[in-house]
Amino acid sequence: MERLPSALLENAVKEFSKLPGIGRKTALRLVLHLLHRPITEVSTFGEAVIKLRKEINYCKICNNICESEVCEICTAPKRDKSTICVVEDLRDIIAIEHTEQYKGLYHVLGGIINPIEGIGPDQLNISALIERVKTGEVKEIIMALRTTMEGDTTVFFIFKKLQAYSVKFSTIARGVAVGGELEYADEVTLGRAIVNRTNYENSLASQS
Amino acid sequence: MERLPSALLENAVKEFSKLPGIGRKTALRLVLHLLHRPITEVSTFGEAVIKLRKEINYCKICNNICESEVCEICTAPKRDKSTICVVEDLRDIIAIEHTEQYKGLYHVLGGIINPIEGIGPDQLNISALIERVKTGEVKEIIMALRTTMEGDTTVFFIFKKLQAYSVKFSTIARGVAVGGELEYADEVTLGRAIVNRTNYENSLASQS
Repeated sequence: MERLPSALLENAVKEFSKLPGIGRKTALRLVLHLLHRPITEVSTFGEAVIKLRKEINYCKICNNICESEVCEICTAPKRDKSTICVVEDLRDIIAIEHTEQYKGLYHVLGGIINPIEGIGPDQLNISALIERVKTGEVKEIIMALRTTMEGDTTVFFIFKKLQAYSVKFSTIARGVAVGGELEYADEVTLGRAIVNRTNYENSLASQS
Repeated sequence: MERLPSALLENAVKEFSKLPGIGRKTALRLVLHLLHRPITEVSTFGEAVIKLRKEINYCKICNNICESEVCEICTAPKRDKSTICVVEDLRDIIAIEHTEQYKGLYHVLGGIINPIEGIGPDQLNISALIERVKTGEVKEIIMALRTTMEGDTTVFFIFKKLQAYSVKFSTIARGVAVGGELEYADEVTLGRAIVNRTNYENSLASQS
């Protein structure tokens, strides 16, 4: 895109372009939108973002975003404290909670191992997970990361770290989506779905 | 989407959701991305947006965003000062300049008439356009607004306001895109393209 006629504008567009999925054209559209809004509204926007980053709290147990020291899920008496589902971030917790199929606790890594973006295991919340396993209260770790090379690498890294402890280690099932047509499933997913086929009688039992 | 586990987070997501084309899910993705960035980077982001809104300059003649009092296009000696192209915002100027087909000046309205969003003619930079026409230096006004009901309303409103002055009033041509296949053109565009067909000999002359 052409050079913009103002350094202030160029700067704001550059900042918006750093966000994931926002290109230079979209950034300019967002910035021009903000220019048409009242100053108070734009200040509220900018300050909300800065305040969030400076004052946000993370749960001391699972690293989920929360208001107090420990999050509502970790403190809920009804939840099964022997199972921990490991996720990348809050969005995954929202998606899993929405299914109403999971009653255990979570552990938020805050990302996945990604050498290209310079994210190594040390930047992730992995050691705290090992500490949780060490207490002996945890019976199963369910890995619910995305199935990319980075996700698989992270699963393998954590698997190796936890091998010394007597804890069941599983990953969420991958396969053809419920209601999905076979011909539209990608071949890797379809291949995995065949290899990891489930016993029909078992699946009948688990549905009832 | 579910209730978010933090008021700070909820607030930042709400602010991002106000941006055009950004829904609640995308807003959460952007906000979580910012949470993983260093505090200094997030502060730079927020402050760049606030600073832009507070300190931006607009050209005193055409209302385009610029660094000084009058923009580079209005001060360029080679540009044809008798023609003004009326646009919604800077993005349109960038697009038209990119064609290298236009050598006149611009006039930025800063929006179009949109009763649903509460934008009336008074909020747009229309009276300054009439002042420019009043000087007598302008021979032609080219309207380059989007062809929506709001765009057409704005064109008609400005047409009425300028009827008293001896100035040529035109709109940019609408039709099938160059290189576009007829069967993929929407029927309104195709219909207009037939009604507003151009004389072949004239078009040959204009190409040479």
